[in-house]
Amino acid sequence: MTALTDQPQAGAGRTIISVDAMGGDQGPAAVVAGIAHSAAKNPDIGFIVHGPGEELQRLIDKKRGLAERCELRHAPEVVTMEDKPSQVVRHGKQTSMWSALESVRNGQATVCVSCGNTGALMLMSVIRLRKLPGIYRPAIAVMWPSQNPQKHNIMLDGGADIRADAKDLMQYALMGASYARNGFGLACPRIGLLNVGTEEHKGRAELKEAYDLIAANAKQSDFEFVGFVEGRDLPGTTCDVIVTDGFTGNVALKTGEGTAKLVGDLLKEAFAYSPLSRLASVLAYTSLQRLKKRVDPRRANGGVFLGLNGTVVKSHGSADATGVSSAIKLAFELAQSGFSDKLAARVASASMVDQDSPTEAQTEGEAE
Amino acid sequence: MTALTDQPQAGAGRTIISVDAMGGDQGPAAVVAGIAHSAAKNPDIGFIVHGPGEELQRLIDKKRGLAERCELRHAPEVVTMEDKPSQVVRHGKQTSMWSALESVRNGQATVCVSCGNTGALMLMSVIRLRKLPGIYRPAIAVMWPSQNPQKHNIMLDGGADIRADAKDLMQYALMGASYARNGFGLACPRIGLLNVGTEEHKGRAELKEAYDLIAANAKQSDFEFVGFVEGRDLPGTTCDVIVTDGFTGNVALKTGEGTAKLVGDLLKEAFAYSPLSRLASVLAYTSLQRLKKRVDPRRANGGVFLGLNGTVVKSHGSADATGVSSAIKLAFELAQSGFSDKLAARVASASMVDQDSPTEAQTEGEAE
Repeated sequence: MTALTDQPQAGAGRTIISVDAMGGDQGPAAVVAGIAHSAAKNPDIGFIVHGPGEELQRLIDKKRGLAERCELRHAPEVVTMEDKPSQVVRHGKQTSMWSALESVRNGQATVCVSCGNTGALMLMSVIRLRKLPGIYRPAIAVMWPSQNPQKHNIMLDGGADIRADAKDLMQYALMGASYARNGFGLACPRIGLLNVGTEEHKGRAELKEAYDLIAANAKQSDFEFVGFVEGRDLPGTTCDVIVTDGFTGNVALKTGEGTAKLVGDLLKEAFAYSPLSRLASVLAYTSLQRLKKRVDPRRANGGVFLGLNGTVVKSHGSADATGVSSAIKLAFELAQSGFSDKLAARVASASMVDQDSPTEAQTEGEAE
Repeated sequence: MTALTDQPQAGAGRTIISVDAMGGDQGPAAVVAGIAHSAAKNPDIGFIVHGPGEELQRLIDKKRGLAERCELRHAPEVVTMEDKPSQVVRHGKQTSMWSALESVRNGQATVCVSCGNTGALMLMSVIRLRKLPGIYRPAIAVMWPSQNPQKHNIMLDGGADIRADAKDLMQYALMGASYARNGFGLACPRIGLLNVGTEEHKGRAELKEAYDLIAANAKQSDFEFVGFVEGRDLPGTTCDVIVTDGFTGNVALKTGEGTAKLVGDLLKEAFAYSPLSRLASVLAYTSLQRLKKRVDPRRANGGVFLGLNGTVVKSHGSADATGVSSAIKLAFELAQSGFSDKLAARVASASMVDQDSPTEAQTEGEAE
C-alpha cells in the first residue's frame, strides 16, 4: 500500500470490495486476517479498507503481499454495538462504517462488507445509498443451512425492519427470488410465505393479502410460489426462499442458531461421557468436522441488504477471520454476477406491473 | 373393563386422566399402547378413554391387565386434522374430543390428553371448560430442551392465538411462572420476554408496554423478570420461561424442531460416510442414544393449555406410544400437584392487583 490516497489503486481489473475494518466484536485484526485469507485465495479481489489509518497500516503490513491489494481510507471513529442508529446517522460522518459505504456510493467499490452494528449499518445504508425506486422497506436476506441441493435456503427479512405489510412481503419475495437466481443459479426459485400453518385460512390478515399478491406476481417474475410454509421448512426442502417480516425472521434466525448450538454442546457432552465414547469421537473426528462445516454459521456468514442502490453484506458481529473471509467471498460473487443491477431491473419491472397491464410488463421482465 | 358405564370405576384412589384415543396421525392403536405403557409404569393412574367403543374395547383387551384400569366412553365421531375449529365446535358433540373434555368438565377426570387438531381442541376447551375469570387469551405452554438444570425451558404461547397484547403477555408471564413452579419445582422462576434484541429501546410498541407490566407484577407474583430475551435464549440458560405471542412462538417452535432434525439428519449422513465413521457410530451408539433422548421431542411431549377451568395436555399429532405415554406422565404430574387450582388462585390474586393497591394484593399472592 502506498498512501492514504483518494483514488483506488488496488484495482487494475480487480473487483473492488469496500471493507469496514471496525465495529466487529473481534476487532480489526480479525477483519484484516479475513481480508488476507480472501486475498490469498482469490487473486481477482481488490480491497478498500476503512478505519484508523495507522492501526490498519500496521496490521496490513504484517501480512505478506497484502499491502498491494489494499487501498486504505482513514476514518478515526467507530460505530459501537451499543450506539443508537439514529445518533450514528446524525454524527457518524467520521466513522469507518460511513466511509465504507461512501466507497460504494461513489462507485469506487461494488459491494460493502461490515461486521458492525446492524441497525446503524442499515439506517446509514438507506440514507447514503438510497432505496431502489419503488422499494419501501429494504430487507436483510440470510442463508440458512438446508437439505436442498444448493445446501442453503434464503430467508428474508432477517431483521432490517420489525414491520412488513403485504406489499413489502411481495417485494421481499421478488428480491429473494432475484438473490436465489444469482446466488444459487436457480432459474425458477421456489418461494414460501412463513405462517403458523400451511392451510390458507390460517394466520394474520396481512399474510392472506400477501399470499394473493405474491401468487399474482409469480409468473412474470419467474418464481414458483409454494404458498404458506412453517418454521420447519426453513431448513427444509419445500422451498428455496422463505419470506417473513423482520421481527419473526430475526426470532427464527436466532432460535435456529441457538438450537444448533444446543445440539452441538450436547453432542460434545455425549462424546465426553465414557472412555468408549471418547474413543468413538476420535474415530468420528473427520465425519464430525464435515458436519460442523456444513452447519457452521461462519461459512454461511453474511446477511445481504436488499432493496438499495448498491449491495451491502452484513457479516456476523462476532465473526472471526474465517467468517469475514466468507462474507467477502459472498460480496465478490454478488459483485461478479452484477446482482445489484439485475435486482434493480427486476424491481423496476414489478413496479411497472403495478401500473400497467401484465402483458406490457412481461416484456420488461427479461432483464435478469 | 366391564361396560360402557357413565361412572368411572377405574378410579379407587387413582388419579384419573381422560384420554381422547382418536384424531392423532398414528390412530387409536398408538394411543392405547401409550396408555398401556403408562399404566404399567405408574399404578396410581386410572384412565377414561374416549372413541368408538368396539374398536377401543378390542385394542384395550389385547393388553393384559389394562381393562381394569380403563373406563370407556363411546364416541362414534372423530375430529380430523383438516376440520375447521369453528365447524367442530358447532357439530362435534359426538366426537371423542368433546367427550374427553366432558370428563374434565364434569369432574370425573382431572386432566384431559388429546393428540388431535390443536385449533379445534383449543376452541372446544375454551367453550366447554371456560376461561379462568380475568383471562382473556388462554395460551399453549410448551417444553423446550435447554442447558438449564431442569433440562427444559417453558415457552408460551406456542400457538393458541396469533395475537397477544401487552396485558395478555403479562398474563402469560404469570401463568408460565405458575407452570414452572409446579412443573420444575422452581420457587422463583426467571421470566424473559421474547424480542429482536435485549436493548430496551428495540422492538414493537406493545412489547415495551408488556415489559413494564411484567416488571410491575414480578414481585407479588414471585417470579424474576430478566427483561427482553432473544431467540437464542429459548434453549439457553438466561431464563426458565419465555413469553411471546402465539404467532412468533409457533414459528420459533417449528424452527427449533426443524433445525434439530436437520442436524440429526446431517449427523446420520456424517456417520454413514466411510467405514471408519460407521465403526465410530457403533462405538458411539450409547452416547448418541443419550443425546437423542435428551432432545427427543417425544420425551417432552405435551403442550399444556393454560388459562382454563381445568388442564388440557395437547400431545403432538404424530405422537407414537412413547409420545402419548410422555404426555400422560405430564398430565399425571400436573394433576398430582393440584396445578389447575393453584394457577386459578394466582390469576385471581393478579386480577386483584389490577383493582386494588399493591399492598393489599400482596397478601393474596401466597395461595400457591
